[in-house]
Amino acid sequence: MSKNVKDYIRTIADFPHEGIMFRDVTTLFADPRGMRLAIDQLLEPYVGQRIDKVVGLEARGFILGGAIAHQLAVGFVPIRKKGKLPGAVISEAYTLEYGEAVVEVHDDAIQPGEKILLVDDLLATGGTASAGVKLIERLGGKIVGCAFVIDLPEIGGRKVLEDMGYDIHALCAFSGH
Amino acid sequence: MSKNVKDYIRTIADFPHEGIMFRDVTTLFADPRGMRLAIDQLLEPYVGQRIDKVVGLEARGFILGGAIAHQLAVGFVPIRKKGKLPGAVISEAYTLEYGEAVVEVHDDAIQPGEKILLVDDLLATGGTASAGVKLIERLGGKIVGCAFVIDLPEIGGRKVLEDMGYDIHALCAFSGH
Repeated sequence: MSKNVKDYIRTIADFPHEGIMFRDVTTLFADPRGMRLAIDQLLEPYVGQRIDKVVGLEARGFILGGAIAHQLAVGFVPIRKKGKLPGAVISEAYTLEYGEAVVEVHDDAIQPGEKILLVDDLLATGGTASAGVKLIERLGGKIVGCAFVIDLPEIGGRKVLEDMGYDIHALCAFSGH
Repeated sequence: MSKNVKDYIRTIADFPHEGIMFRDVTTLFADPRGMRLAIDQLLEPYVGQRIDKVVGLEARGFILGGAIAHQLAVGFVPIRKKGKLPGAVISEAYTLEYGEAVVEVHDDAIQPGEKILLVDDLLATGGTASAGVKLIERLGGKIVGCAFVIDLPEIGGRKVLEDMGYDIHALCAFSGH
């Protein structure tokens, strides 16, 4: 039987700190069949829909986003951690377990009315993704969907984004944190 | 006349600090023609050669590397800053203007004899790229080439890597630092 996306993902216990079961997509990306399967399945719901740009969240979302933008022959826009983008930016803060973080996008990276696909490897609390969709909408972009390799449904990020009105697509789910 | 890759790159003065002319590839990536042109030209010297994996350097090398790995239908391997990869890693330190930095790769990400294409957006001192090729070779990988969007020849990284015996491919050059 052929492998599915979940079969290529490795779990590392106690990373980045004790008690966390880290879902490692590098083993998915390193396998040629895994990588292609993931890109094809991430795009499947959007076949036939207009997408003008792919937005990826730093850093693993860049790997997926670069591949998907190239596949669709559209542009790629990075959302980065504070201070990494050289041009004029707009920012959004979001809450972490302890404290907060800020993500940024170049203020000219998206034109009003452009149809945007947001991609990242993992949907956990939805904090980064929520900040990302806010940045996109502040620039006038229209979210076609938010696509993730992994959903951690017990953490609740999917519900947060769905309650905001976004269409969420995830290739597989893991239980636990 | 059609635009070339260099025409899509924006220069931001005094980033990340005064006196630096930062060459910003996000305007290249955000443009569908720019992105496609860059990926096609990065691959051009390697047409017909066997490539087993694409290795990208964090973080902009992930955007290019993801696209190129997908184009070639091969796996992608990230080289990351210290502490970001969850599994067992090998590390290489390299010198910065002030102090040093460390990059890492998963110790099972490349198998002995695999043919590797290394990609990044910018070749400046060659510090990160040199550390990257050392990591790849320590795992038994064979470097097919090192491909960059931008070369800053006055900083000398190209010569460093060529003196180490590597084939360097860059799409354009900018003078100055």
